[in-house]
Amino acid sequence: MKQHFSKRVSGAKRSAIRELLKLTEQPDIISFGGGLPAPESFPHEELADIAYKEIKENYANVLQYGTTEGSRTLRDAFVQWLAPQGIDVKREDMLVTTASQQGLDLLCKAFFDPGDVIFCGLPTYLGAVQAFSLFQIDKVGVQLDDDGMSVDDLEAKIAECKAAGKTMKGIYVIPDFQNPSGITLSLEKRQRILEIARREDLLVFEDNPYGHLRFAGEEIPSMYSMDTDKRVIMLVTFSKVMCAGLRLAVMITGQPDLMDALVRAKQATDLCTSKLNQHLAARYMLDYGLDQHLEKIRPIYREKREAMTNALERYMPQDEGIRWTEPDGGLFIWVWLPDGVDSAEMLGRAIEHKVAYVPGAATYVDGSGHNTMRLSFSSSTPDQIDEGIKRLADVVRAEIAAKVVGSL
Amino acid sequence: MKQHFSKRVSGAKRSAIRELLKLTEQPDIISFGGGLPAPESFPHEELADIAYKEIKENYANVLQYGTTEGSRTLRDAFVQWLAPQGIDVKREDMLVTTASQQGLDLLCKAFFDPGDVIFCGLPTYLGAVQAFSLFQIDKVGVQLDDDGMSVDDLEAKIAECKAAGKTMKGIYVIPDFQNPSGITLSLEKRQRILEIARREDLLVFEDNPYGHLRFAGEEIPSMYSMDTDKRVIMLVTFSKVMCAGLRLAVMITGQPDLMDALVRAKQATDLCTSKLNQHLAARYMLDYGLDQHLEKIRPIYREKREAMTNALERYMPQDEGIRWTEPDGGLFIWVWLPDGVDSAEMLGRAIEHKVAYVPGAATYVDGSGHNTMRLSFSSSTPDQIDEGIKRLADVVRAEIAAKVVGSL
Repeated sequence: MKQHFSKRVSGAKRSAIRELLKLTEQPDIISFGGGLPAPESFPHEELADIAYKEIKENYANVLQYGTTEGSRTLRDAFVQWLAPQGIDVKREDMLVTTASQQGLDLLCKAFFDPGDVIFCGLPTYLGAVQAFSLFQIDKVGVQLDDDGMSVDDLEAKIAECKAAGKTMKGIYVIPDFQNPSGITLSLEKRQRILEIARREDLLVFEDNPYGHLRFAGEEIPSMYSMDTDKRVIMLVTFSKVMCAGLRLAVMITGQPDLMDALVRAKQATDLCTSKLNQHLAARYMLDYGLDQHLEKIRPIYREKREAMTNALERYMPQDEGIRWTEPDGGLFIWVWLPDGVDSAEMLGRAIEHKVAYVPGAATYVDGSGHNTMRLSFSSSTPDQIDEGIKRLADVVRAEIAAKVVGSL
Repeated sequence: MKQHFSKRVSGAKRSAIRELLKLTEQPDIISFGGGLPAPESFPHEELADIAYKEIKENYANVLQYGTTEGSRTLRDAFVQWLAPQGIDVKREDMLVTTASQQGLDLLCKAFFDPGDVIFCGLPTYLGAVQAFSLFQIDKVGVQLDDDGMSVDDLEAKIAECKAAGKTMKGIYVIPDFQNPSGITLSLEKRQRILEIARREDLLVFEDNPYGHLRFAGEEIPSMYSMDTDKRVIMLVTFSKVMCAGLRLAVMITGQPDLMDALVRAKQATDLCTSKLNQHLAARYMLDYGLDQHLEKIRPIYREKREAMTNALERYMPQDEGIRWTEPDGGLFIWVWLPDGVDSAEMLGRAIEHKVAYVPGAATYVDGSGHNTMRLSFSSSTPDQIDEGIKRLADVVRAEIAAKVVGSL
């Protein structure tokens, strides 16, 4: 059957990691693998009431097809919510998408031909890597520092692409508590990346799933709000700030031409996003308030993150160059293991010890990162986190000991 | 900003028809334009109860991410429902999609490179044309007879493609009450098209949104059920048999390799379909029964279709070569106007007379069909249908008279 496949899928293969992580559904495994939001953060009582009422009384609307652009009620609610965040947009600047992963798919469709270049972090979000790969986009990795994407390395990579005669189209950034690393892009670097984008006439794709989950430190303005020539396209998903099961996000651009291309791409992609789900989110925003909800759920994540950094301090070997991020928000902590430790190889042994994580290599588009791993603190309790990190530290310690023995 | 666009969107432009049809949202216009299912056919009382209970009691599941393949409960319910229809499948043969439009997007992604050929009817579903165009697929139109796709023309088009050295990948068919024409593919032709597909090693994409809305005549087996070498991939949407607002469909293939490519494509496209919506549909199927529901809603469409064909008989000029289809199911009647009448040009005048339809030309991939139009009977009452067809007949009569005057 291979003769039927397109070039874009015939290269790819089923992820071995994904298969391994399926094992982590066993109840005795403590999994830091999936990037799932905490279910106790879902406003389910309110959504149940809204769903009942909307379906019962407004069925001819919410159970019907909607416009490709999205529900006016939802877009208007979003406009109202964003204004105090310094993001000044109109309803027409917004496209409702079937969650942000679809937003990435539409960006690929609207703006990239095969071989065009996108710049992204080393590491970057795995789902974005998958979307870019499916469209045969040339993913050029840029080093991440502790304060986000290295501007020097970005300049160097741009120079290389120019020398090679490549067509550069955009920069993909997750400025706040990046997936997978938890790293936040500094204000100064946001400014400098925008300047580079302007100079090189690149679009900037600002993916912002975690920015509203800040539980410590100072907020940094979004790149969209700092952008003076409308080259930033922002994606804001409901998955982490409300719940993931609605599959709902909003894509924002102030350029009608870009919006037009995105709308046409979406029409061919799924016609429209579920009207029911759009109304659930809109009514929740209007009747209960998303900011009030965020106030309630941030402490849930703060407690879990503290449990994890405390456990890492307590159990993880402190030498051998092991280090980790301590993000002020989001869902993820990133761990660098000693050079020579392969976190993908180690995963099988970790699962034997009833703990799991995501090996980092797949999130490095340049093939590096084998000694890294992503730990999600969002869907375990503080006690589970403590026990899980203890198990993981034992696995890491054994791994390092084996390497030392092996090198004798 | 045009320099930012991909080739696939830079050719396309916003549809003038789509803009015109936006005018039809005015309440005094009788619109036969949109292919919307009848809202009175939505099982809203039951869905409201299910939604309340699922969100309240099962929130950690239904408001969370799901697997890319889709909910087991839904796929199992679908297996049970299909078995009496002669469709013997397992859970693993099914991929839940964000409605059938996404199914088309995934087919394009998994199986087509730019320039590969797909065969489709003249006319065919506009959403499919848009999806194929976005992937720069070579759409080769095949004549439709009263009993569906012409086998002779299909053979001729295959010979032409071979002579031109093109790569042929698949045949796209909507066998039952096709959108837009309402035409049904005969049993004999289903068999012959399958034979041709086997001989030429083509995939067959069987889009089946309307087959379960048959309200008269004899059922014809699906091509999937007649397929002996697993080259048919079937799409079955919930949009017409339950409601459109859930954005839910199931894609079926008995070939694990093809399924694997589709799953990988879907993962990069939207990760997963809304778990909530999947559970609404699954619980409805299990607790209330889709067949019982279909028994209730078929008479709604039968009455509307009869109102429309009666009104066409009564009001439409009977000479000049005007004719129309009289489908035993589905949502659409297709009208051929006299040669020389351009239904797209006529639409503006129809809207002035407070009636609307979809001009046919956009559904012909070879640029023909200017004298055709699609009338949807699904979302008007019988009285509105009678009045609307009366208005439309006046517009057509005036149009023909003007042509005669113009040609003197």
